Amino acid sequence: MPHVKPVEYDDASPEVKAVYDDIKASRKISWINNFWKTLASHPPTLKRTWEALRDVMRPGALDVKTKEMLFLAVSVANNCEYCIASHMASARAHGMSEAELGELMAVISMAAQTNRFAQGYQPALDPQFKPKGG
Amino acid sequence: MPHVKPVEYDDASPEVKAVYDDIKASRKISWINNFWKTLASHPPTLKRTWEALRDVMRPGALDVKTKEMLFLAVSVANNCEYCIASHMASARAHGMSEAELGELMAVISMAAQTNRFAQGYQPALDPQFKPKGG
Amino acid sequence: MPHVKPVEYDDASPEVKAVYDDIKASRKISWINNFWKTLASHPPTLKRTWEALRDVMRPGALDVKTKEMLFLAVSVANNCEYCIASHMASARAHGMSEAELGELMAVISMAAQTNRFAQGYQPALDPQFKPKGG
Amino acid sequence: MPHVKPVEYDDASPEVKAVYDDIKASRKISWINNFWKTLASHPPTLKRTWEALRDVMRPGALDVKTKEMLFLAVSVANNCEYCIASHMASARAHGMSEAELGELMAVISMAAQTNRFAQGYQPALDPQFKPKGG
Amino acid sequence: MPHVKPVEYDDASPEVKAVYDDIKASRKISWINNFWKTLASHPPTLKRTWEALRDVMRPGALDVKTKEMLFLAVSVANNCEYCIASHMASARAHGMSEAELGELMAVISMAAQTNRFAQGYQPALDPQFKPKGG
Amino acid sequence: MPHVKPVEYDDASPEVKAVYDDIKASRKISWINNFWKTLASHPPTLKRTWEALRDVMRPGALDVKTKEMLFLAVSVANNCEYCIASHMASARAHGMSEAELGELMAVISMAAQTNRFAQGYQPALDPQFKPKGG
Repeated sequence: MPHVKPVEYDDASPEVKAVYDDIKASRKISWINNFWKTLASHPPTLKRTWEALRDVMRPGALDVKTKEMLFLAVSVANNCEYCIASHMASARAHGMSEAELGELMAVISMAAQTNRFAQGYQPALDPQFKPKGG
Repeated sequence: MPHVKPVEYDDASPEVKAVYDDIKASRKISWINNFWKTLASHPPTLKRTWEALRDVMRPGALDVKTKEMLFLAVSVANNCEYCIASHMASARAHGMSEAELGELMAVISMAAQTNRFAQGYQPALDPQFKPKGG
Repeated sequence: MPHVKPVEYDDASPEVKAVYDDIKASRKISWINNFWKTLASHPPTLKRTWEALRDVMRPGALDVKTKEMLFLAVSVANNCEYCIASHMASARAHGMSEAELGELMAVISMAAQTNRFAQGYQPALDPQFKPKGG
Repeated sequence: MPHVKPVEYDDASPEVKAVYDDIKASRKISWINNFWKTLASHPPTLKRTWEALRDVMRPGALDVKTKEMLFLAVSVANNCEYCIASHMASARAHGMSEAELGELMAVISMAAQTNRFAQGYQPALDPQFKPKGG
Repeated sequence: MPHVKPVEYDDASPEVKAVYDDIKASRKISWINNFWKTLASHPPTLKRTWEALRDVMRPGALDVKTKEMLFLAVSVANNCEYCIASHMASARAHGMSEAELGELMAVISMAAQTNRFAQGYQPALDPQFKPKGG
Repeated sequence: MPHVKPVEYDDASPEVKAVYDDIKASRKISWINNFWKTLASHPPTLKRTWEALRDVMRPGALDVKTKEMLFLAVSVANNCEYCIASHMASARAHGMSEAELGELMAVISMAAQTNRFAQGYQPALDPQFKPKGG
């Protein structure tokens, strides 16, 4: 159950409706998911977050499937149930196969494991890995 | 500075040397990075972790560049400095462009942001996103 | 469902009852929430944690509403559902408006986003931000 | 050391310079901190992130000092060293006293402690704390 | 509800069945818990993860009860509900008393609290604590 | 470098000195580490935190070595560098062998790995693991 009242399309202000309409048009879908309906409790947050997400998730140097898989990986690392479910659906809708999901989960979990070793043992950074921007 | 003494190749037991040799052969490199040298303080951990990582990071349904980018994304989400540096280097070595890095970072940060909204507002899971395994 | 049996007031030892009575008196309420009832499975933990929380959350240099909003922000960052629900209720009871909640959530999510950029790109610390205690 | 080359003002494209100028004007300062210089390696990320941050951190229902303290609290919870240093400086510049910092840190750490109890014992959610949006 | 279809014993491939049989034999139990049934959606992950877990959790320098308590502590720190429930059961099955659980939870929460103080205040590392591996 | 000025013994108020004296007496040491010197910037936090830590870390149902290993495990999971260094030293001082450290790190990393699988795949909780407190 959400901590704020979700805003349904018919009850939305014109400002919120405009965002909802853009979500539907951009995603070629006819419904608004609950994430956006709760964000609509604070309209400037809804508008800012939607526009940023829409622009970030557009195809660019990376294709949409790869972006959705990265989004899913971070959502698993952050343990966000809603986000895992919604981006699991989205990654599959953009072509992620079950074999790709299996490998994605294996990479996430391997990273979790080696991250802890590095954080626990704290190896010195090898000169070969020195950041390039310094 | 590491919390255990890194094991150099010349001081390594045959068991550890065999893993070091496999790292060099698999990666076609002539040096061992400090991560493995600290894991070598506990040889069964070194062997188990290297073999698992080697197998998980092989090309499969996902190519190596994509796997390295996923590994990097999780390492950023987990805030592991050593891991970010080593997998940043590795992802670039496997072809990640600066434009792809820019989009990768944008996706990670967008996910961090929307994850917090979902965790804070706790929208109900839409029936459309219901897990497929139930 | 909790992992230990919650201790109800009527079943409580005198030691636990004394803490429950102090919770009721300090908060001017007539019931004990489940968080404390599970902590009561280990009475020294109950007493120590309640007394620390009570003292930390007292009005001081910061007022109670601000403290509750900080508590809520950390609970969202830590993804603790029970804590989010209980401190959402408490922050509202101490006067947090829906507009303030909207801005609170926007700040939390913005921080999550910029934190990841800083952790991923690792900008050098500007001399202007150097800690004051060194 | 950063993982991308920071973009200095004199080397910046007009698009990046425009953001830098807005940062200086909005904050009434004459320098750009390294966070933004690393984000400038990907100009759309720089522009999007700065504009969002600028709007979120404006005085609104919450004043700037409170917003900076919330930002600092989340940065501590996320363990982001650069973010802690920069927002510590900023919160102090907006009037956070040392006594307020002491209470802020006490609240953050108290929340970290009780969050873990709730996540470990998993008390049932009391009906009194049921979310309002359901 | 899981995001992949759990693989039941009777529907399993010989490769998966062999792992299931090893789980039953190693743990002297007659059932397979859902964690492994979901991992079986990607057989190499199932086999690799089970064999690693089985070897790591064997009695060695540390006994099994201590290992299960460490596993539980990390699972609470990572906020993994399924893992907390399964390793709570396992730690109790290996002899963890309710008093030990109480002290375990107190240590976890104390560490969470002091971790945040150290991450927020960033005390310089005392020479007495300098890592031994440098 | 710390964000507050560490309080040296000779500059301390009587209230802070009393805590420092108790730290020295309880630990049978002649120096105060920087963690406490930064907490002394807010004396009630110093006193409250020290007394809680002292009581939690006393031998009880669990011995001190086990408690220090649990504290270290949580500090690695939370990625707290200072805490890892100080509790690594403390666990070794209380008898943790290098073999035990190796197994401790293996358990932490295994838990990190399986935690992510459980959080990503979200297996249903088996009835056999149902919490006992419900």
